[in-house]
Amino acid sequence: MGKRLVIALGGNALGNSPKEQLELVKETASTIVDLVEEGYDVVVGHGNGPQVGMVNLAFENSHNKTGGTPEMPFPECGAMTQGYIGYHLQQSIGRELKRRGIDKPVATVITQVEVSKDDKAFQNPTKPIGSFYTKQEAERIAAETGYTFVEDAGRGYRRVVPSPIPVSIVELDVVETLVRKGTVVITVGGGGIPVVKSEGWYEGVAAVIDKDRASSRLALDLHADMLVILTAVDRVCLNYNKPDQCELAEMSVAEARKHIDEKQFAPGSMLPKVESCIAYVENTENGQALITSLHRAKEALRGETGTIIHK
Amino acid sequence: MGKRLVIALGGNALGNSPKEQLELVKETASTIVDLVEEGYDVVVGHGNGPQVGMVNLAFENSHNKTGGTPEMPFPECGAMTQGYIGYHLQQSIGRELKRRGIDKPVATVITQVEVSKDDKAFQNPTKPIGSFYTKQEAERIAAETGYTFVEDAGRGYRRVVPSPIPVSIVELDVVETLVRKGTVVITVGGGGIPVVKSEGWYEGVAAVIDKDRASSRLALDLHADMLVILTAVDRVCLNYNKPDQCELAEMSVAEARKHIDEKQFAPGSMLPKVESCIAYVENTENGQALITSLHRAKEALRGETGTIIHK
Repeated sequence: MGKRLVIALGGNALGNSPKEQLELVKETASTIVDLVEEGYDVVVGHGNGPQVGMVNLAFENSHNKTGGTPEMPFPECGAMTQGYIGYHLQQSIGRELKRRGIDKPVATVITQVEVSKDDKAFQNPTKPIGSFYTKQEAERIAAETGYTFVEDAGRGYRRVVPSPIPVSIVELDVVETLVRKGTVVITVGGGGIPVVKSEGWYEGVAAVIDKDRASSRLALDLHADMLVILTAVDRVCLNYNKPDQCELAEMSVAEARKHIDEKQFAPGSMLPKVESCIAYVENTENGQALITSLHRAKEALRGETGTIIHK
Repeated sequence: MGKRLVIALGGNALGNSPKEQLELVKETASTIVDLVEEGYDVVVGHGNGPQVGMVNLAFENSHNKTGGTPEMPFPECGAMTQGYIGYHLQQSIGRELKRRGIDKPVATVITQVEVSKDDKAFQNPTKPIGSFYTKQEAERIAAETGYTFVEDAGRGYRRVVPSPIPVSIVELDVVETLVRKGTVVITVGGGGIPVVKSEGWYEGVAAVIDKDRASSRLALDLHADMLVILTAVDRVCLNYNKPDQCELAEMSVAEARKHIDEKQFAPGSMLPKVESCIAYVENTENGQALITSLHRAKEALRGETGTIIHK
């Protein structure tokens, strides 16, 4: 068995339509197969921001304007995006493996991720989803459904859902079984379908789990050798986009924490990525985390670029 | 390892909305866990007729009336339903296993099923999907897209897609790996995402694969001990709904063929089920097929009801 990598892919890198996505997954597949060729066992987590937005909006539009289709709860929209994105990824990775003569299975596992009902995020929903409404519409829907709406940058009112911390991966043993058999596994899509404990098992809850945090949880629970977070930049920077911008080749957990205290990393952007790396690194024996770009991942794993986060 | 069953569940038994489906999968889960308790290794194939209709229609409505979401190709709609239905099934089966103190994983595998470009079904599309259109609208869309439309029982024009025969299960090895580890596997949802060979690998194609035929293919390729097709009746009947209706406890492949020649089984209903059983039974060494209802499946496997199809 090779070293085990958990890779977190951005949902933004997957495009805004099926046509765009099918094109964009080709580059993703190429990078993932590069890493397979280097001897790694690869597990792929991915975001679904634009995609779950699209599914949720299509069902809202269709239901509100025609009534011809039922309302679709948010966890179910997430499950749909796991199928939709997973299908494109697995097909594209399968084709690239075949092209390079590598005989390995690829699988998408529909994955529930447990969050806690007591997570304080449920008291403070922050993630906007779905359509824009007028104040009157938003107030009516809120009264009917209990949804929370917020005014979004002058563009109207939007529903917001909480973003709780992932507690456990429900299908962990399934992923473990497949990885051991050499399968490239696609899992925790969109951070996972969010579920809470209910009647001794789980039920869906309207929430968005950050895909980097879910991938960090997955890397810990799979005892991965490395968490790799792929983003738009080759390396984490200090003083990002300022004249004295400085690329980091590596940082310790303690240094990362110091940079966070100095507000070096943008909330909703680099901050959750660095925090996800810290959560993974400080809870493993020897694991390291890597933040880099999709197209330079292979070089980064050879130490030529990227930012390593270590103990 | 127990005897291996491939079960084909009807999409109609899953309801027309997420609320209905979450309720209806409880009975399904109870039956499946009954069979697990009896010592069988269970693989679940399922239909998606109403569900893929709903997803396809929501995207059509939303795109046509608001333009706010992109057009969604039919194979991608199918992938979404695999995630959506699989999520409900896996959660419900997981809960029922837990309730009965059975420690077994449950997994939904996003599954592509290969069909042949040369299948004659592509020359004669028959399966209606999506919205009803006026003749003028249908002609315009047909000219723009190449879609085929037919007049549907006086209700308007609908797009039709072909229903080709399944050739192979792309993710077969993934399903095999999981079944060997004792996993209850949900696969070939909606008959599988239909794909054809392209550039040495696969690409999606607008088609509907009959879920009983896909489950039959799966049962053969997994070397299952039995194919179980669950439907609305406890047993296959001759002279169905006539005064001389007669329930069959068993029939040989030769007898089944004779009944088909006598037009005993309705096309689009019992006929493809019996044909799927024949295709499985005559290509296995000792395999038998069973047609029965969801709520009597356990008794049927004990020989108390159901129709067995044997060599």
